[in-house]
Amino acid sequence: MKKVAVLGSTGSIGTQTLEVIRQHPDLFQVSMLACGRNIELAKKQITEFQPATVVIANEGDLGKLKAHLPPETRAMAGEAALLDALGETDAAFVMNAMVGSQGLKPTMTAIKAGKTIGIANKETLVTAGHFVTAACKRYGAQLIAVDSEHSAILQSLQGSNRSDVERLIITASGGSFRDWSAEEIQHATPKDALNHPNWSMGQKVTIDSATMMNKGLEVIEAHWLFDMPYENIDVVIHRESIIHSLVEYQDKSVIAQMGTPDMKGPIQYALSFPDRLELDGPERLNLWEVGTLHFEKIDPVKHQCLLMAYRAGETGGSAPTVLNAANEGAVQRFLEGKLSFPGIANVIEKALAAHSVIAEPTIEEVLEIDEETRERVRNGTEM
Amino acid sequence: MKKVAVLGSTGSIGTQTLEVIRQHPDLFQVSMLACGRNIELAKKQITEFQPATVVIANEGDLGKLKAHLPPETRAMAGEAALLDALGETDAAFVMNAMVGSQGLKPTMTAIKAGKTIGIANKETLVTAGHFVTAACKRYGAQLIAVDSEHSAILQSLQGSNRSDVERLIITASGGSFRDWSAEEIQHATPKDALNHPNWSMGQKVTIDSATMMNKGLEVIEAHWLFDMPYENIDVVIHRESIIHSLVEYQDKSVIAQMGTPDMKGPIQYALSFPDRLELDGPERLNLWEVGTLHFEKIDPVKHQCLLMAYRAGETGGSAPTVLNAANEGAVQRFLEGKLSFPGIANVIEKALAAHSVIAEPTIEEVLEIDEETRERVRNGTEM
Repeated sequence: MKKVAVLGSTGSIGTQTLEVIRQHPDLFQVSMLACGRNIELAKKQITEFQPATVVIANEGDLGKLKAHLPPETRAMAGEAALLDALGETDAAFVMNAMVGSQGLKPTMTAIKAGKTIGIANKETLVTAGHFVTAACKRYGAQLIAVDSEHSAILQSLQGSNRSDVERLIITASGGSFRDWSAEEIQHATPKDALNHPNWSMGQKVTIDSATMMNKGLEVIEAHWLFDMPYENIDVVIHRESIIHSLVEYQDKSVIAQMGTPDMKGPIQYALSFPDRLELDGPERLNLWEVGTLHFEKIDPVKHQCLLMAYRAGETGGSAPTVLNAANEGAVQRFLEGKLSFPGIANVIEKALAAHSVIAEPTIEEVLEIDEETRERVRNGTEM
Repeated sequence: MKKVAVLGSTGSIGTQTLEVIRQHPDLFQVSMLACGRNIELAKKQITEFQPATVVIANEGDLGKLKAHLPPETRAMAGEAALLDALGETDAAFVMNAMVGSQGLKPTMTAIKAGKTIGIANKETLVTAGHFVTAACKRYGAQLIAVDSEHSAILQSLQGSNRSDVERLIITASGGSFRDWSAEEIQHATPKDALNHPNWSMGQKVTIDSATMMNKGLEVIEAHWLFDMPYENIDVVIHRESIIHSLVEYQDKSVIAQMGTPDMKGPIQYALSFPDRLELDGPERLNLWEVGTLHFEKIDPVKHQCLLMAYRAGETGGSAPTVLNAANEGAVQRFLEGKLSFPGIANVIEKALAAHSVIAEPTIEEVLEIDEETRERVRNGTEM
């Protein structure tokens, strides 16, 4: 029986994690749930999974939960309580499906407790990859990819020698605007951007997908997860999202992981790794039903956010922290209707230009730069 | 240093095996070469690789070799000499790239000597899969797939548990006539059939590719190599031959091996298995250069040879022996201009219908049925 903590349990990845756990009650048990403001859904999850610990974002919502708590469940609120609970939980596996750079501290706490961490929160690795990977080595913790692309790479690496790996190739659907002209994109609304063609995901990641910043963050994440230089990580546009990513070996053989687009596959693989389990939900992939798979090269004009991410990754130090925080602030402004869609890239560019890179920032500096950059971008003072 | 015997050294797979060995003189050494009638090429190979033993098909050709033999090389002729030499060679790896069911006895001899065998001769497994796989277990010998499709499956199985495997999906280019109508195929000549769109191969296998019998033989081969029931082996038409085959797991995740079509990849993988080595020759696969991959369902009318192979495989016993021998005879008649292209399938169908299946044939019965069937088909008396 593997005991599991789910952080971000009411979000897209969180609810699907619970769906997977529901299919295997003999193998997985929920020890801890953490969520934000969706108290109604949290109540249902608590009733069903009877976790020992629940942590919610706001103190003020605790009252709404009280009447619904099973006798064995204790409930807490706030970040400090979350970190305490993570340090104490008996869960061996922590699914970190929190959104944005707020996922960093919980990841670090779980690492220090020697947990295995399903890392659906890519900002953690983007903003502080050097600390996170160093801490994993030090505390014997393990990060397992949950993003479909990184799960595909992990699956395509099984049974191989690291020294045989030549290149990682990450596929990108191209997001909501892949068939829009540059002119049309100028006037794209949040509603347009949220209309992703292949994947049903949270708001932030769907916008990131439309700007291709999502793919940029994934490139940085892959760099850290698989210890791969940026020049050996490629991105290819693949509109059908059937091939989830690929690994090229030194004999030019390429191993790919494929499937119908469904996050339950990668989520379950992280939970069952390195084994596999039966899974209801995803459709079986029959390539003759798909018919055609398309691939296109990256467009340096349309995909400038991706190229910025490569540059920030290669620069290293505090540059990816700024990239990520500026992106979070800019996406928020876009969703609030205060910024045009092309404005997202411009704001990030300006924030990066205005930042003096610290080559080896401490974790306190990372958190400070993260906070400051996001704040400035939110206020429109990123220059 | 891995010592290698190459059977069929002057054929398509044989020469490419020597190309791979040439790239890694520090890792591989040729102990033995066996070939048929191309004595001029054999001379060059002997001069370059200085094998301890050379076996040619015909006694009469021995004289032509004599003047060209290095002092340490002994030369022999005929099947008995080949089997003797295989029993005595110090080669740990035997690449069996002989064409047709004449490859069976050398495979059995190599198995009894406990060798690792690169099995480019699929007829061996088709005609006597039950003996060959049972003998491997008994003598601790190992068969390693060399066909690009089976190599792809082997690569896609690495690091997995057998019990997690749900289905093998073999890709088929569709052969020379994939875009021909049934009417056009009626009048196809050997020259038409030998014009394969993707792969440069020997004559027999190119014709088998045009009839899709090649894919049928591969299904039977996959059944034996990977111990997989026929109902869990699918075939999909994939005209670009970029995805070489796929494995579906019980979580519906699909792992595929891909690359530009070049047999040196699978050949080297068999030699270096389970490791990989650098390889010059194959073009690097960039999917954005390929652009589009197509997949189609099998057509029960056009691909009747494939369906016959499934039926013969499922019937088991001596049925695949008859299928394979009748196919060899029919292809020979077609190449000699004595049979129309659609006649190949008809002849095999008739030979199967006329045969009373032996459920558990001895190896002597297998060899007898093989011989008899081929003889009858050659003489046009298969009914």
